[in-house]
This record gives sequence, structure tokens and C-alpha cells, in this order.
Amino acid sequence: MRDFLPADKARRERVLAVIRERYRAHGFDEIETPVVEEYARLHAGIGGDNEKLSFSVLKRGLDAEAIRAAAEDPAALADLGLRYDLTVPLARFYATHRASLPSVFRAIQIAPVWRAERPQKGRYRQFVQCDIDIIGDATARAEAELMTASLDALDALGLEGGTIRVNDRRALDAMLDVFGFAPDERPGVLITIDKLDKIGASGVVAELRERGASAPAVDAFAAYLDRPQTDAAGFDSAGIRAALPDGIPDEIVDHLVALGETVAAARGGDVPLRFDPFLVRGMGYYTGTIFELAHASVDYSLGGGGRYDGMIGRFLGQDVPAVGFSIGFERIVDLLPDAESAGDHAVVLVHDRDVPLVDLVSLKTVLVGEGRRVRLEQRTKNLKALLERATADGYTAFATVGNATTRESLEIKPLG
Amino acid sequence: MRDFLPADKARRERVLAVIRERYRAHGFDEIETPVVEEYARLHAGIGGDNEKLSFSVLKRGLDAEAIRAAAEDPAALADLGLRYDLTVPLARFYATHRASLPSVFRAIQIAPVWRAERPQKGRYRQFVQCDIDIIGDATARAEAELMTASLDALDALGLEGGTIRVNDRRALDAMLDVFGFAPDERPGVLITIDKLDKIGASGVVAELRERGASAPAVDAFAAYLDRPQTDAAGFDSAGIRAALPDGIPDEIVDHLVALGETVAAARGGDVPLRFDPFLVRGMGYYTGTIFELAHASVDYSLGGGGRYDGMIGRFLGQDVPAVGFSIGFERIVDLLPDAESAGDHAVVLVHDRDVPLVDLVSLKTVLVGEGRRVRLEQRTKNLKALLERATADGYTAFATVGNATTRESLEIKPLG
Repeated sequence: MRDFLPADKARRERVLAVIRERYRAHGFDEIETPVVEEYARLHAGIGGDNEKLSFSVLKRGLDAEAIRAAAEDPAALADLGLRYDLTVPLARFYATHRASLPSVFRAIQIAPVWRAERPQKGRYRQFVQCDIDIIGDATARAEAELMTASLDALDALGLEGGTIRVNDRRALDAMLDVFGFAPDERPGVLITIDKLDKIGASGVVAELRERGASAPAVDAFAAYLDRPQTDAAGFDSAGIRAALPDGIPDEIVDHLVALGETVAAARGGDVPLRFDPFLVRGMGYYTGTIFELAHASVDYSLGGGGRYDGMIGRFLGQDVPAVGFSIGFERIVDLLPDAESAGDHAVVLVHDRDVPLVDLVSLKTVLVGEGRRVRLEQRTKNLKALLERATADGYTAFATVGNATTRESLEIKPLG
Repeated sequence: MRDFLPADKARRERVLAVIRERYRAHGFDEIETPVVEEYARLHAGIGGDNEKLSFSVLKRGLDAEAIRAAAEDPAALADLGLRYDLTVPLARFYATHRASLPSVFRAIQIAPVWRAERPQKGRYRQFVQCDIDIIGDATARAEAELMTASLDALDALGLEGGTIRVNDRRALDAMLDVFGFAPDERPGVLITIDKLDKIGASGVVAELRERGASAPAVDAFAAYLDRPQTDAAGFDSAGIRAALPDGIPDEIVDHLVALGETVAAARGGDVPLRFDPFLVRGMGYYTGTIFELAHASVDYSLGGGGRYDGMIGRFLGQDVPAVGFSIGFERIVDLLPDAESAGDHAVVLVHDRDVPLVDLVSLKTVLVGEGRRVRLEQRTKNLKALLERATADGYTAFATVGNATTRESLEIKPLG
């Protein structure tokens, strides 16, 4: 877990403010849930592998007997846990507050989550997730709103030209059905297909054979992977059909085509979507469209999401359609530069030790009243180091307060 | 712990944005530390009673043997804990990052803390603290900057006319010395004096006698409490002296007078400080000036703070002066109204089911591009309820999308 020093923290807050403002403009409303959820809810089987990485909160007031009794069942020591994602809390929130929410609820959640991962470069045990979700809309309107809002947010951050890789879990299911994989082996097969980017077609086929997947199905899949590729396939009916084996139901393709046309019309210009028949995404709860945000400047995804029509029902006892997108806040923050400081807005007031406190703080207040950001610094022998420190902290100008302590006599000079 | 629905969350974020902006203008820099700190650090005796209210995080991978071994020592089950304040994390942060920080470091921290309090009205187990601290400045400049920045933030929130009750721990110490309380009984005596607002002078004297405090000292204190009061005492040398028994060292009074003059000059007009010789504040770590923010609209404090010159040294092994102020964010949020919505900035687009998705999302995007906030709503039988819901969520205008789906043909009408 990390501390954030002033420059990093300022950049993070700036990025969050842009994302928050863009999502709000697109009709999303921000909510907040507590950092801890009930232990049982966090371990209900919805969170996949993340459940195992959950930090648990020790029950208060445990006595020796209760602790001994929990020796064989450590879960009995905990009643709460730190959330590992924002989706489980959202489902719980929606089930609790549904009567106070609009019938189609567009949620923004910006908050930290925790996972007890082994420390490694670029992985943190506490990190911020930034999710938007639409609950109560089963149509492609929901996916289109998530996508246009997220591309708009990316634009506003200076990352124009984002594209979205799209697939549909139902297309994946239909494809595995066409090849002849049995329903009970499909979850394992999907885990292997998900590695296509990393281990390539031959690696995937080899792993499927190792897994002992149905041999004729693997052969059919291998032949399909081996077919001549048409890289230029567009996100239209012909392009999507060309990327899929025969036998995929029309309704799945039509849904994708409608989505592509809508996002393209709203954004203007080319369709920013790319159909990827092998996009899997890890979570077991996805039921329909799945997608990942890409940008030419990086070779990893800048966010992802999908439709999860079954999950809210597990909390509410009544099925409600839902689709969500999580923008990769931590990755985006790392891509963006510090704010460019300009003008004489941020001023260091360097003062001698003997300047009366009354004059000094009054002068600062006058400058703050002019709309400036002001730091007081008592002069040190190494004035250069002091001013360099201030420049690194985003200050752009300085003034020296000596005998003259009036605003009129103050000369504000650029730093650096 | 609470969920925050959209209207509440929007108000909270608005208040935080104002406070953050004002504190930044006054030269404070925001930092962030992880939500969890090491268990041992949270239980090092700095946090006072809050340590007992700390939530602990269960060690990962405990086996049956380790759990049994911890039966008599539950602390062995935890390696981390949720922070109960922002002061312990700040001290740890400063000790870690001192070399990267300016010699006088002005910190902003805005973040949740957790205390396992018994549930009661107005007390929450998770709540946001909003602290500013100045580390490395032993002069009254630091107190003056904290106070002017906080009064400015209060003004910016529409709570003009805030005042600050001020005392000094050294004045309290000197006063107890004058009355003849022995050093080892003073902490207990202070706990009783802290109840003066609640139980009155006679209650305090009775409780001191019950405690078995030195009888001549209690008599002297009772006589002092009983003396004729001068309510109109100003925050100047004469006023402060009049509120204290004889024998308080000049340097303490002079420090307070300098502070009052400085804040008054910077703010203009009357001194916004009130001297309160019986202000105690609970934490054991205060060493000098202590203060609480008051406002005429409420009879409780809107924040408080003080000087704690000894604490950083416990982490750093080297004394560094420090003073902090915590603005009462949760209390202030409850005082302020929802944002007033005006104009036709926030628009609900009500559409029929058969409006093509392409047209609908394009129209939304055009309106968003005009700087508006836009919510799509499919028309329902009860249009009135739908629009009332939107009004409650801050929407101010609506338009109906029927056959005409161009921007030109859209008529935006005020809501309500």
C-alpha cells in the first residue's frame, strides 16, 4: 500500500475530478458505500478469486474460549471485511435503496478496494476503482451510454482516440456450442481461451488438449483458429459474422451491430469498437456484452466491463438487468503528466525572521483574496534550494517580504 | 456505517471541494495514506481512548495452531488495523517522507476513519475527517495560518462569522500549579474540568472532591470559579490576564495575544478569537495552544485542534513542532442545504420506446457537448412521478423526444 505525496495526490485528484464531472454530465449519479461489508456477503461466491484475497476484520471482544473454538474455522473470527471490488457493494446498495432510486439507475462509484495480493511491481493492495453501472436497462442503450461516457472521459483527460474491444458472453457460449464443447467443460475452456493474447493459438490448443477437453471440439476449434484472417473486419454485420463460426444466433450479432452504430453516431466518425470473438474477461458473473477500453499509447487495457444480469437478483430475489464499466484509474493516472503550472497564481512569500506576524499573515490573506495560492517561507541561507522545492511543489512565482510589507510594494517574480 | 445516496453524496463532494480549494489556496498540500496502518503503530499509546475502538485486520493464512496460541492474546491475530484518526498516520508519513517535504510542511488530509463505537444517534463507525496540520513551525505563525484558513473555508461554505475558542495547555498547567494540584493528579483534574460545560462549576468542584483531589487545591479552584465574572473580556493582554489567576508566565499570555492580533488583522474587523481558560480538549498529546471552532448557528463545536510538539519525535526520534486543526466535516455537511439547481443545465430527455437508439444517444451527446447534464428516461405511464424523481435528483429541465429527434426540434422546458 502506498503513501501519496503532494504532487501525486494532486494529479490523482485532478484526474478523478475530470472523470467525475464527465460521468455526471452523462447522467450518472455518484454514491458511496462503507469500506467494510459483512463477511458473509463478501464470501457469497460472487467475487470469484477476489474473495480469497479479501482482508477480514477481527470481531471485537473475542474471549479466549471463542478464539479456541475458531481454531478449525478462522472465518468465525471475522464479521466484516474490506471490499475487494465495488460491484458486490453496489448490488447490496441497490437491493437496500431501490425504492429511493430512479427506475433506471446510473451509478458512479469512486473508491478504494483492497486485495491481499503478493507484493509485485505495479500491483497494490489498496487501489482506487472508478466504476459506472446502469441498473434496470436490458437494452443496448445502457452499453451505449457506458461506452460514450467513458470515451468522453478519456478525451477530457487528453487521451483522445480510445477504442473498445467488444464481445458477448452469449457469442462465446454459442461458439463453444458450435465446436462441440460440453456445457460442463466450458468454464475451463474459457479460462484457457482467455490466455490467447499471452500464449498464442498453438499454446491455447495445447493447453486445451492437456486439460483433456473433448478432442473433436478442440480439433474444430484449432481449425477455426487456423483459418485465413481478415484483419480489416469492420464492426458491422458482415465483419462480425466473418469473425465468428457459422451458427451464432442472429439476435446476438444484431445487438452488437446496433451498439456499434449507436456509439459511432454519437461519437461521430469511425466506429470506435472492435469485435474480438476471443475476449473472455475473468469474472463468472457476466451474462452478455463484455468490453475493454484500449488506447494506442499503451498495450494494456484502460478499463473493462460487461453485462451481469443475474447478480442483482441474488441480493434482491428478483432479476434486474445490469451492466457496468470500470475505468482503469490507477493505470490512467500513471499515464498522465503533472499539471502544468503557469502564470503567477501560486506564490511563495519569502520573509525575514523579524517581519511582524501581523503584517505577514495579513499580506498572505490579501494575496489569497486575489485568487492566488500562497506559501509562506522564512528565508534560509540556501534560498535557491527553498525555491527549487517550491517549484517542484507547483509554485510558479515568489516575492520577498522585507521591510516593505504592503501589497503595493510587493514585487511578484516568476520562479525558475 | 452509512450508504450515501446521490443527493447526499453530491452535497458531501461539494463541501469537500470547497474546503480542499480554500486550504490549497492557503498553501496547504493534500496527501493520502493507506486506510490500514500496522497494528503496533495504532496501539502505541498515542491515540488515547481511540486505540480501544480500533478495528483490527485479521492476519492472512492463520492455521489452527496459530489461532489456539492466540487465545490469551487476541492482538496476535491481527497485523493491521483501520486508522482511528489522521494524526497517527500523518506522524508516520512525515517520519517516512521528511526528506521529500518542505521544511515547513502544511498538510491537508481528507479521508475516512473508523471507530468501533456503540451505535447511537449522530455517531458513525465510519466518518470523514478533514485535517490540516503544520509540521516544522514552532511560532504562532502556524496557529494563525490554521485559523485564517479554516475561517476562510467556513466563509466559503456560507457559514460566515465563525469564532474560535482558544486556550493553551501550558496555561492550564500553570493554573493547576497556582492552585496547588500536584503534577500526578493533574491529568485526572483536567478530565473533570473538561466537563464544566456539562455539569457546571458546582458539579466540577463536587467531582474533584469525590476524586480525592488535594483539598486545599480544590478550595482554591472553587474560590476562583466563584469570583465575579467579566463576560466582556477581550482577546487582549488585559482580557486574558483577567480570565486567569495570578502567576501565569508572561510568555504564554504574550503568545496568545500575538496570535489574536495576527488573526484579527488578517481577517479584518473584530478579533474572532475568544479566550476560554477551561477549554481542555481530550487528547493527551497536546502541548500548547488548543482551540475549537464555533458558529452562532449551532451550540456545538465545528472543529478543533491544537499544538502537539512531542508526537512527531516519537516516530522520528527527533523533536519537530507540529500543530493541527480538524474541521468538523460531518457536522458541517449536516448544516448545509442541497445545492440549488437553476436554469436548464440538467435535462431529462424523455423518449418513447421506439425512438431509434442511434438518434437517442446522439441527441444526448449533443446536449452533453453543450455543457449540460443529461439523463435519458423511457416514457412511463406515470410521467409525473418520473419527473418528480428527476427533480429530487437535481434535474431542472426536461424535453420530450418523439418523432422529431434533431437538436433544433427539441424544446427544453423547466421542471417543476
